[in-house]
Amino acid sequence: MNAMGFERILGGVCAPKGFLASGVACGIKAEGKPDLALLYSEFPAAAAGVFTTNEMKAAPVKLCKEIVDGPCARAVVINSGCANAMTGKRGDDDAHAMVRFAEKALGVGAGQVLVASTGHIGEYLLVDKVTSGIKQAVDELSVGGNTDAAKAIMTTDSYPKELAAEMEIGGKVVRLGAMAKGAGMMHPNMATMIAVITTDLALPRERMSDWLKKSVEWSFNRITVDGDQSTNDTVLMLANGAAFPDGHVLTDEEADLFFRVLCWLTGRLARSLVKDGEGAGKLLRVVVNSARDDVEAERVARAIANSNLVKCSLYGGSVNVGRIAAAAGSAGVSIEQSKLAIYVGEHKVVEFGEPVEHDPRDIEKMTRRGEVEVTVSLGVGLAAAQILTCDLSKEYVAINAGE
Amino acid sequence: MNAMGFERILGGVCAPKGFLASGVACGIKAEGKPDLALLYSEFPAAAAGVFTTNEMKAAPVKLCKEIVDGPCARAVVINSGCANAMTGKRGDDDAHAMVRFAEKALGVGAGQVLVASTGHIGEYLLVDKVTSGIKQAVDELSVGGNTDAAKAIMTTDSYPKELAAEMEIGGKVVRLGAMAKGAGMMHPNMATMIAVITTDLALPRERMSDWLKKSVEWSFNRITVDGDQSTNDTVLMLANGAAFPDGHVLTDEEADLFFRVLCWLTGRLARSLVKDGEGAGKLLRVVVNSARDDVEAERVARAIANSNLVKCSLYGGSVNVGRIAAAAGSAGVSIEQSKLAIYVGEHKVVEFGEPVEHDPRDIEKMTRRGEVEVTVSLGVGLAAAQILTCDLSKEYVAINAGE
Repeated sequence: MNAMGFERILGGVCAPKGFLASGVACGIKAEGKPDLALLYSEFPAAAAGVFTTNEMKAAPVKLCKEIVDGPCARAVVINSGCANAMTGKRGDDDAHAMVRFAEKALGVGAGQVLVASTGHIGEYLLVDKVTSGIKQAVDELSVGGNTDAAKAIMTTDSYPKELAAEMEIGGKVVRLGAMAKGAGMMHPNMATMIAVITTDLALPRERMSDWLKKSVEWSFNRITVDGDQSTNDTVLMLANGAAFPDGHVLTDEEADLFFRVLCWLTGRLARSLVKDGEGAGKLLRVVVNSARDDVEAERVARAIANSNLVKCSLYGGSVNVGRIAAAAGSAGVSIEQSKLAIYVGEHKVVEFGEPVEHDPRDIEKMTRRGEVEVTVSLGVGLAAAQILTCDLSKEYVAINAGE
Repeated sequence: MNAMGFERILGGVCAPKGFLASGVACGIKAEGKPDLALLYSEFPAAAAGVFTTNEMKAAPVKLCKEIVDGPCARAVVINSGCANAMTGKRGDDDAHAMVRFAEKALGVGAGQVLVASTGHIGEYLLVDKVTSGIKQAVDELSVGGNTDAAKAIMTTDSYPKELAAEMEIGGKVVRLGAMAKGAGMMHPNMATMIAVITTDLALPRERMSDWLKKSVEWSFNRITVDGDQSTNDTVLMLANGAAFPDGHVLTDEEADLFFRVLCWLTGRLARSLVKDGEGAGKLLRVVVNSARDDVEAERVARAIANSNLVKCSLYGGSVNVGRIAAAAGSAGVSIEQSKLAIYVGEHKVVEFGEPVEHDPRDIEKMTRRGEVEVTVSLGVGLAAAQILTCDLSKEYVAINAGE
């Protein structure tokens, strides 16, 4: 166990007891790439979800928002390659068909299969291919299927994203596992990402939902790749209680531990989504402190993290302090220039709103390492916020220009 | 005279009577490029200004906001290459010194010289170079100096931007002239642009100020290059009354005509700023109509125009309707998917929130022409808004990565 009271272990969504997964190629994506993932819990699980706030919600998002409020869940089915978004009534019917077929194939009750889609917007789902894929995915379910599942939800991601951890609670080993996909359209409200988190702890639904929301707020909602917001963002969590066949009531300390590990897990996943952002080569952590309140701190941090000019200069291997200040000043937050200080890593580059002499080689060295932290001190209060982003590269433009 | 009752004429800020201009190289920019512009009115002029709303206002912006409220103006002095922004107390002193020196060199009273700067943020002004430049610029003032002045305010602009028009008012020829610079950091609130508008009509200051604000709102504030907002945006207008040595009271009709021509002029300049945006190859006009109200229409139009993904697909020569819909949905405006229609030019591509079959070659043809109009119909009201933007290109990234 580490200092935080848990240990990172190998594996993903199948690390907690009682979860099986699989990933298959059903033919939505070209070239036979895997495009359908299935996760199954051997025991009824409590479920919670957080979804995109985009008004153009995809059909599976609308449907999943309903299902997740049902009494219990047994499975999650996800396809990549087609987002089933902007597909109207037919899209709703297709998402329903996908869920119905999975319920039947798994032999579970109605309303126990959660659903998500990711990929192109404005295209209809190839339902025949999805249903034959579900059939195959049910046949291939296994406790070793987590990586296949993580691969099958990828779109422009360059590698599958999985994570798992274990801790001791009530004398037993309790586990958390997760898989996620991201890449572009990554912005507050989780833009184009899908994540599934599993645990073998038993959790009351309301508490789990509350914890999931908070941990998403501090992780997936604090990253941005391109400022674009997706129609399909979905984070799902399933708790099947398999670690305690006879039940267990969490002490406050145990609850704290579990929540901390959940936050670690979502934070790590969020970071890996930015790091693997479309065309991303460098990571930028923007910290805004001594702000009047949390809302202002966050607003300034987001304005900087979403500035194309800031992100381009990072791509060029430098940190343009003027652009950072200009972005901060456009956030709609009152700023006293004479109190402003800016740090790049440990190096103070602006004090009292004026440039401070420093060795530019120190900062170049930092950008070459591929990870830069910029701290903007507003000097007017005690609040702070942090947003993680990446550079804006020619590769990003090429990927999204369809080259 | 055209159907709108005016005529476009050659020239820029010197087209109206009584204005002289010059542009010189004082050594702020490398390689002896012109970097100091001077505009002088032979008669005292009423002045008005609209400035950036960025909290990190540059020293000359703060100073010019004060001066423009004075009783009359005689001149405008502008340097490029250094924005004199984020330069604290010393920057304020430098802007003051620049104005004082110009007042003395021109022999005009205190508070009659307006000032602006554009260029790198976070660098101190080279006051010695600026003052020797002003000296030279005063010597070189001429009625043919408008293009030299327009060249001297350029930064990453690829060509100088000038425009002039004439109309008949009260039996006399009245003229409007203008110069502008733009390129990057171009966004609502006029981002990194500077424009100077001159007229030989006499205008009461309040009326001129009101007209200038409105025309800026409908032109420079409706364009975006990269969503970044500058610290130095300044639009100035001078009216010296030289067309009517004996005075003239405008009729309502004459006032309407003049205001229309002012709006035409600012609109044309705004369009040329986007067209010459950093790395821009294509123009995108986003129209949102049948919205609940103007604010919602504008918000949706801005969200689409600022979407990196929308702009990248334009760069790639296509129009990705899914990205447009996703951007619209993230604007914080309630949207009824089933009422949504999207047009690319004349071609309907989405109806009732679902894709409509169309020939993609029609749209490809349009993007090849370099100018695309996308109309998003929300189907819930009567309000409309329009924003002009350009594509996001590899060249933009290269320019702003410092390559």
